Amino acid sequence: MTTPSLIAADWGTTNFRLFLYDEAGQVIARHAANIGLKNLGVLSFEQALLSVLKGDFAGLEHLPFLLSGMVGSRQGWVEAPYAACPASLQTLADGLVKAPSELDVAIVPGLFAESPGTGLLNVMRGEETQIFGILQSDPSDGFFVLPGTHSKWALVRGGKVESFSTHMTGEMFQVLKAHSILGLLMENSTDNEEVFLKGVERGMYNRAFLSVIFSVRTEALFNHIAPEHLATYLSGILIGAEIVAELERHGKSPVRLVGDGALVDLYEKALAFAGFTDVTRFDGNAASESGLWAIHKLRSSK
Amino acid sequence: MTTPSLIAADWGTTNFRLFLYDEAGQVIARHAANIGLKNLGVLSFEQALLSVLKGDFAGLEHLPFLLSGMVGSRQGWVEAPYAACPASLQTLADGLVKAPSELDVAIVPGLFAESPGTGLLNVMRGEETQIFGILQSDPSDGFFVLPGTHSKWALVRGGKVESFSTHMTGEMFQVLKAHSILGLLMENSTDNEEVFLKGVERGMYNRAFLSVIFSVRTEALFNHIAPEHLATYLSGILIGAEIVAELERHGKSPVRLVGDGALVDLYEKALAFAGFTDVTRFDGNAASESGLWAIHKLRSSK
Repeated sequence: MTTPSLIAADWGTTNFRLFLYDEAGQVIARHAANIGLKNLGVLSFEQALLSVLKGDFAGLEHLPFLLSGMVGSRQGWVEAPYAACPASLQTLADGLVKAPSELDVAIVPGLFAESPGTGLLNVMRGEETQIFGILQSDPSDGFFVLPGTHSKWALVRGGKVESFSTHMTGEMFQVLKAHSILGLLMENSTDNEEVFLKGVERGMYNRAFLSVIFSVRTEALFNHIAPEHLATYLSGILIGAEIVAELERHGKSPVRLVGDGALVDLYEKALAFAGFTDVTRFDGNAASESGLWAIHKLRSSK
Repeated sequence: MTTPSLIAADWGTTNFRLFLYDEAGQVIARHAANIGLKNLGVLSFEQALLSVLKGDFAGLEHLPFLLSGMVGSRQGWVEAPYAACPASLQTLADGLVKAPSELDVAIVPGLFAESPGTGLLNVMRGEETQIFGILQSDPSDGFFVLPGTHSKWALVRGGKVESFSTHMTGEMFQVLKAHSILGLLMENSTDNEEVFLKGVERGMYNRAFLSVIFSVRTEALFNHIAPEHLATYLSGILIGAEIVAELERHGKSPVRLVGDGALVDLYEKALAFAGFTDVTRFDGNAASESGLWAIHKLRSSK
């Protein structure tokens, strides 16, 4: 029989995933809940966390808690200031911040970096934990691609996150679909690989971004793309624009692609289309689980 | 004393501007009303038009009406199908469509074109009338820039609109400000030329569009740009991205800049920053007035 030793969570704006570890670092229970930062309602962070300690998690309030993600932002439970890149696993352990609570809660800091060559600042929260989670089993140098609301492309060298950039690909898709003229003609979205890759191609080879997205409207007006395929066309344009920008900076380097579900399928197709021949997929939840335990161990060993 | 001979309007999604002409084509009365397509409510187009025939326009229902803009779109009063480029003033007169009404209402067609070198389709409604309005007094070849929700860059040769492209610059600004994370940190916007031009520069020289816009958030997080200047910074990035795309296609050609108010001031600054040395401004309302009359005369002379 195993003994519970740590409760950890990836706690973001939308998602919340809770993990229970035994003393050897094996995850013995998991729970997902609808308490992302934007869904907290009147609950405090502590109340929200206690509210999910049910089932396998019941009666374990005495355990240490370790949280990563937007819960450590200025709008979160307590701010865990961004640590500077290059950053190691030790940087994250050193930057842990205790939450103001009766519970024993530590929050993982985010990272900030200048994106290479541009002088633009970038920030991440949650992805750093996933990257170090994957590095536990595969410590080699290289690029990590973490698709999402704000996609990250991170370069790891010598066990450190050296630099990274952000693309607002997921959020752009959502706001254009819900709030712009481009969403007006979209109907009952269904996937279509050919239309998706047409979007990827146009997003890659037409760098006039504000212009190429308008083709979502005109391709519909002239019946070139069916209403139910317009969303997949738009997603192709956006993912293509993201990929070509990184391609120009880094070439077709091997990449580790981190995440889950249909979104990562799309990135896999788009990366293949763009000529990336060395793409390895990693499960996003497993990466968080592994990263949170690695940070916990490093803290405990001090 | 002058005799009223024509009522014309530029009738768009948001704006509605009504003009009354005497027999010589002089505008003798003007009226602006809040009956853009999105504000019609339960009114039919005919009811809305009749509702604004007050004051100088009272009792003139018997005159011919000529309308340009989104009123001729599929969501408008009646669809006036897009005419193909290259298109002349005659093309517009030939493409007039009568509205289903007791009134004598004709609607100006929009234009469509393949944007040069990309194969992407583009459409305009209303801007074609403004361009031909300006050509009445200045018929020379060259580029027209019409900033707005969907900015247009049109090339005129030999009295015809030969091709044009669209940039969703204005709409992108609105949706990102109102509906994305970039708007969250914005406060009480005030203009700041230095910050605006910093945005223009970054929009021009960093082609990773989805990445450079994220700097609106990070420049705020790290207190590099004050909350009240974030909106002007974002508008700079977007206008810079639009200008550099056209610069790559056409170089720093002379441009005629068409429109009104603060938006055109911004474009004038950004174009100067980008190195366009030959920029001439034209008033947007005057351009519409002149274009509508020119179409009317051509139709009447048949």
